[in-house]
Formats: sequence, structure tokens, C-alpha cells
Amino acid sequence: MSRIVMKFGGTSVADLDRIRIVADRVKREVDAGNQVAVVVSAMSGTTDQLVNWVEEASPLHDAREYDTVVSSGEQVTAGLLALTLQNKGVSARSWLGWQVPMKTNTVHGSARIEDIDTTEMQKRLDDDVVCVMAGFQGISSDNRITTLGRGGSDTSAVALAAALKADRCDIYTDVEGVYTTDPRIVSAARKLDKVTYEEMLEMASLGAKVLQTRSVAMAMNHGVRVQVLSSFTDTPGTLVVDEEEIVEKQVVSGIAYAKNEAKITLVGVENTPGIAGKIFGPLADDNVNVDMIIQNISEDGKKTDLTFTVPEGDIEKSTEILQKSGHVRYAKLMADKDVVKISVIGVGMRSHAGVAARMFETLAEKGINIQVISTSEIKISVLIAAEYTELAVRALHTVFGLDSDQA
Amino acid sequence: MSRIVMKFGGTSVADLDRIRIVADRVKREVDAGNQVAVVVSAMSGTTDQLVNWVEEASPLHDAREYDTVVSSGEQVTAGLLALTLQNKGVSARSWLGWQVPMKTNTVHGSARIEDIDTTEMQKRLDDDVVCVMAGFQGISSDNRITTLGRGGSDTSAVALAAALKADRCDIYTDVEGVYTTDPRIVSAARKLDKVTYEEMLEMASLGAKVLQTRSVAMAMNHGVRVQVLSSFTDTPGTLVVDEEEIVEKQVVSGIAYAKNEAKITLVGVENTPGIAGKIFGPLADDNVNVDMIIQNISEDGKKTDLTFTVPEGDIEKSTEILQKSGHVRYAKLMADKDVVKISVIGVGMRSHAGVAARMFETLAEKGINIQVISTSEIKISVLIAAEYTELAVRALHTVFGLDSDQA
Repeated sequence: MSRIVMKFGGTSVADLDRIRIVADRVKREVDAGNQVAVVVSAMSGTTDQLVNWVEEASPLHDAREYDTVVSSGEQVTAGLLALTLQNKGVSARSWLGWQVPMKTNTVHGSARIEDIDTTEMQKRLDDDVVCVMAGFQGISSDNRITTLGRGGSDTSAVALAAALKADRCDIYTDVEGVYTTDPRIVSAARKLDKVTYEEMLEMASLGAKVLQTRSVAMAMNHGVRVQVLSSFTDTPGTLVVDEEEIVEKQVVSGIAYAKNEAKITLVGVENTPGIAGKIFGPLADDNVNVDMIIQNISEDGKKTDLTFTVPEGDIEKSTEILQKSGHVRYAKLMADKDVVKISVIGVGMRSHAGVAARMFETLAEKGINIQVISTSEIKISVLIAAEYTELAVRALHTVFGLDSDQA
Repeated sequence: MSRIVMKFGGTSVADLDRIRIVADRVKREVDAGNQVAVVVSAMSGTTDQLVNWVEEASPLHDAREYDTVVSSGEQVTAGLLALTLQNKGVSARSWLGWQVPMKTNTVHGSARIEDIDTTEMQKRLDDDVVCVMAGFQGISSDNRITTLGRGGSDTSAVALAAALKADRCDIYTDVEGVYTTDPRIVSAARKLDKVTYEEMLEMASLGAKVLQTRSVAMAMNHGVRVQVLSSFTDTPGTLVVDEEEIVEKQVVSGIAYAKNEAKITLVGVENTPGIAGKIFGPLADDNVNVDMIIQNISEDGKKTDLTFTVPEGDIEKSTEILQKSGHVRYAKLMADKDVVKISVIGVGMRSHAGVAARMFETLAEKGINIQVISTSEIKISVLIAAEYTELAVRALHTVFGLDSDQA
């Protein structure tokens, strides 16, 4: 007997027919003798509708009321799935965030989970009741509903799996697992059987939309075995596990790309001590998340050129902040939205030299100019012109042996 | 300064435009220096949609999950109204049933309010915060959401007004107040300025759909001054008050009709002691609400004919129960759905004789045959063939001096 947490996203519970399919999947796990907790998102489209209403009602909305309105979507699916399970003869009950309780901090709209009291739920699981929990929501210390941010139901599921010490956390979604790269760009993309937490974390934060970054970090911290799989097919998905579980490590396990980056270059900045703080401090104060940074110092050492990337949506805000800020003197500010960040990811890089060189050579062969480079222990990212996205991803996918016919 | 509870039904909060109109009305009361608590229903149509989903998910549904799903509608409007008020510069926050808490018993789907803890809400009201409460919902002792039954938001509002010792409870709806009878049938129907709790109670339970019966009973018990008025016009509504507040009492203040009645006649029942219990016991056990009853005893006293009414929706169930029940012997069972109950209501009847006689004469003059009669201190009801509904209501409205030109 295993204890399993199953999580179903919005497309998997889009209507009653799909909820019935979900119930069948849950029933199969119950019939196999497993204890099952289920985490559900809102029916697809519902959250968008609710968010639109909130924004129309009050453009500068109170995040506490936002959470009250928006969390209702998961409440509906939790109840409907419990009912559908009961109708199939499976004992089930729903749990809202405040009923568990799933305690969070008071940062409404993107709250962090602080504690989950699973006492009641454990009792029900021991009585073979399927516990259906509304994802995405919690309760703050001041007794108000909080939400965990878009895609937060993944985090709800992993947190619940950790609290329940579940043997597995199955994340059902509309893709069949984690791929070596986006199959819409590279038809030879392969589904990975296993991927490490670290790789998944990089992939999630670098643009792969399969799992929410926070949920992967939480899974890694608590050692929750996560499986990503499709709710529409019966093929096995991708297991996200500890590095030790992967016997034969690929040097590179995936190529990710992120189009929502923008590049800002400050030309001719006075090179004085503390200049970086003067530039990036005000951006951080306004919640602009600066990612890649490079600095070139002029021959005489008195001037420097600074290039960095920010989220595309923050480009206007960022240029405004830099133009207003009287502390920083520069000759020229250039902003470019037509860039893409391409990343090569793999835990094997730790023990295998030459990945960066091979990446740069490959791009050079295709005539692609690298604008910015950043690296970590298990990934290399480069910023290039957006028009080369497909060309670069396909070339790297082939050169690192990821194409399916080479597998 | 007064403390007011304002309640808005589903048509009044049907979309964001209407919610803005509601917010303007609330703001007007706030600007006049009043402390305001607001109770809202779900957007019209939402509850029906949610109920349909529940019934489709599980025909024999778990009432606890029904309540979880269906209560989400009021949650959305409470948040949206709070946001809309904030956007107009009015301090406001939403309260869900479990947050107040509005404690109820555990009879899910038609729970009764047991206690409302308004400590927190009183504090906010004293700080000039508009408290927007989701109607129709509460929380049971086992920490689950309960609902109060269809139209339960009226009851939520009156209960809150009683708990807050509010000076008035304004029920905004899509009609302008309480009428002497249905204006769709009698164009000369008049809006009443005032009506007593007792009359309102009879009208509500006899088919007038303005207020939920339970909410009127609660208002009467707690002496809550209720005003029924339209959220679409600015005309004053009808005040539901204690009898003493009405100086000049009408003998008859309203004519009600209820079409959802059905008549069952058992012919040739053996007239033995305890026979009534044998007939009505099994019906009560199956929650069939028997209303009017008459019994005629045959000349020799050995046989009796029994006629009674049940809700139209329960007619098949009732005949089945009576046919199955082996304890009762009768010659023939006749069922008739084409009946209507017409009622004449007025506290003035207590001190004014001859109302019944005048009612029967009027119907006789129009050639309408009375099938069953039942009376209480302040109302007389008769069962007649449904085809005479309009004729009877109009004739009685005129004869009791209710037509607007006679007012």
C-alpha cells in the first residue's frame, strides 16, 4: 500500500466529463489499495474570468479580496470531484485551504505555505476516504483566504505530499511529461523518463512551463518524488527525483528557451565604486528581477558598459527608473525586446568539461551572435536575437545527442 | 447615526454594472453617516449553474459537498462588492460565513442559524468599515460550510440585523415592495406602505415570493424592522413592522395565491379510530408537507371521505405511499393538480367579523366552487379549480377595497 497525492490542473477538470475521467484515475489508485489525496485546480478559464472581474471591479485591488474571489474556483472543483467520486462508490470529501488548515503567511496573491495540519486528513486517509483538497489556497493568521500565486496548485500538491509523507506526488497535466525541449519547436524532442530536481528547477525557471518553480524547490527540499504525467493518456510520465536515483546521467538533459526576456545596455557609465548598487538597487526596490549581467570596462578604466536582462513586462518600468535616477550617469541607454535566452541544462556538466565550448561553437557555426552569457553548475544560458530561437534550439538539441533517433 | 443592514438579491448583483449601482446605494448610506453591513446573494444564474453541476456530478448528492460548491457564488459577489466599494473610496471588507462566524446546525442544504459572533464585525463597523457578508451560508460545528436553503440570504440578513441590533434591515429586490396581490394578475394592485409581520408571514408562506418565510419569522421574533424595496428605482418600499406601528388597520391587506398545490381525495375510507394517523404518518415520514385537510363522514358513520392538499411536486410520491400502505383501506383515490389556493389575509380580521362570509359569497357570485377551506386567525384560504385563479383574485381584490382607485 502506498500513499499518493494526485494533482490535476485546470484542463484536466475543465468540465464534468473530464472530472469523471479524473475520478476514474483516482478510483484506479484506490482500487489498487492506495491511500489517495487529490489536489485540484479551478476549471480552466474560471480563474481568468474571476481575475478579470476583480480587475474590472477595482484596478488597484485589495489582494485580500482578490484572494477571496479567485479561490472560489478551486472550491467548486474540489466539491464536484468529491461528489463524482462518491457517485462512483468511492468515499471522498473535500477540504478547502482553511479547513485543512493550510497555513500561509499574509502575502496575499503569492502567499508562502508555513504549516499544514494534516491531523484530520490523516484520519480520513486511514479510513480509506479520498481527501480532495482545493489547490492554490490557504489561510493566513488573520483568518483570511490567501492564494499561492498562479500555478500555485503544484505547490499545494507537493506541500501536501511532504506533510503526508506521501510515497509519490503525481502531477497530471496536459503534456505527457518533461521533454528534452519544446516538442512544438523540435519534433525530435524526447520525453525524459527521469530528471533530477536540480535540472527540473533550472528548466522550470528557464521557461519550461510543466511545473511551477516553487513546487520543484519544495519537492527537492522535502525529497518528494514527483511524477509529471498526462491526464489524457495512459503512458508513464517523467519522474523528478534525486540525482542518486539516476544511474546513467546524460551530460545534457534538456534545452530550454525563454522569450519573455528583454536586454538593457547602459553605455559609458562612470566606473566608480558602488555603481552597480546604484543601478540595481532602485530596480530591486521596485521588484524588477534582474537576471543576466555583464560588464565591459573601457581601456582607460574610467567608463564601463553594462548589459543586463529584465522580464519583458518590466522593460518600460526599468528604463523609467534608470532615467529618473539622478545618481547614475551614462552616455546612452539601449533597450531590446527581441532577444531570447537559450539554456543547456544537465547535472552531467558537473563532471564533464567542454559543454560550454561545444555550445558556443555550435551557435557560431550557425552564424548566431551571443550577446550575454551566464552559467551555473548545471546550466549554461546565452542571450541571442529572438529570430534565431528555433535554429539555435534545434542545433543544440542535435549536437548534445538529444534527438529521439539518437537516443 | 443609524446602523443598517442592506441585503441585495441575485438580480441586483447580476453583473459588475449592477454591483456598481449597489455600491452607490451603500455609499449613500455611508455618506449619510450610517454604519452599514451588506448581505449579498450570488450573481443571478450562478447558483442554478452550480446546483446543476452538483446534480449532474452526483444525483444522490452529499449535502456537505453541495454546500461547499454552491456557497462559492456568494463568496464571489461578497469579494467583488467589497472591491467595488473600495474603488469608490469606501472602506470595506468581505466576510464569508465561516469567517464571521455564522454558526449553524449541521442540516446541510437547509441549515438553521444558531449563533452569530459579531465581535470582529462590530469593531469594523465602529471603524466605519462597510462589512460585506456572503449570504446563504454558515459554518457547522464540524467545520464545514452549510447553506440555509434557497432564498436563505434574506434569513442571513435578518439574522445579522438582529445580532448587530441594527435599526433597519433593507431587503433590496427586483420588485418595489409588498403588493396587495400579484400586479401581473391585478393591474389595480397597490404597494403597501406597511405590513405586519404576521401578514407578511402568511403572504410569504401562501405564495408571495417577496421574502423567504423563515426570514419573516426571524424578523418577527427579534423585532427587526424590515424594509422591502427595489434596487432599480428610488421609490420607498414596504416596511414590515409590528402590528402596533400600524395605526389604521385594513381588514384585508392582501390576496395571495399558490398554484403549486395538488389535491388528493380518498373516497370510502373505513372510519376507525387512528385512521388519520395511519394516512398522514407515512406521508410525514417521507417529508410530504400536508396542508389543508377536510373529512366528510358518511350517513352511517362507517365510511369517510378524506381530502387534503400536498405540494404539486410530491403528488406522485404521495399516491405511491398511500397505494403501498397496507394499513389504510379505501374505495378510490383521486388526485388533482389543477387546483389553486386563494388566500385573503389581514390582521384586521381579528376584530372584524364577516370576512369569510363575504369571501364565499363573492366566489359564489362568480360561479366558483370552493373545494376545501382552511382558516387561521388572520387569513382564510380556499382551494378552487386553477382555471378560476385570475377571476377569483380580481374579484376578491375589488370586494375587499384593495384596488388602487378605491384606496
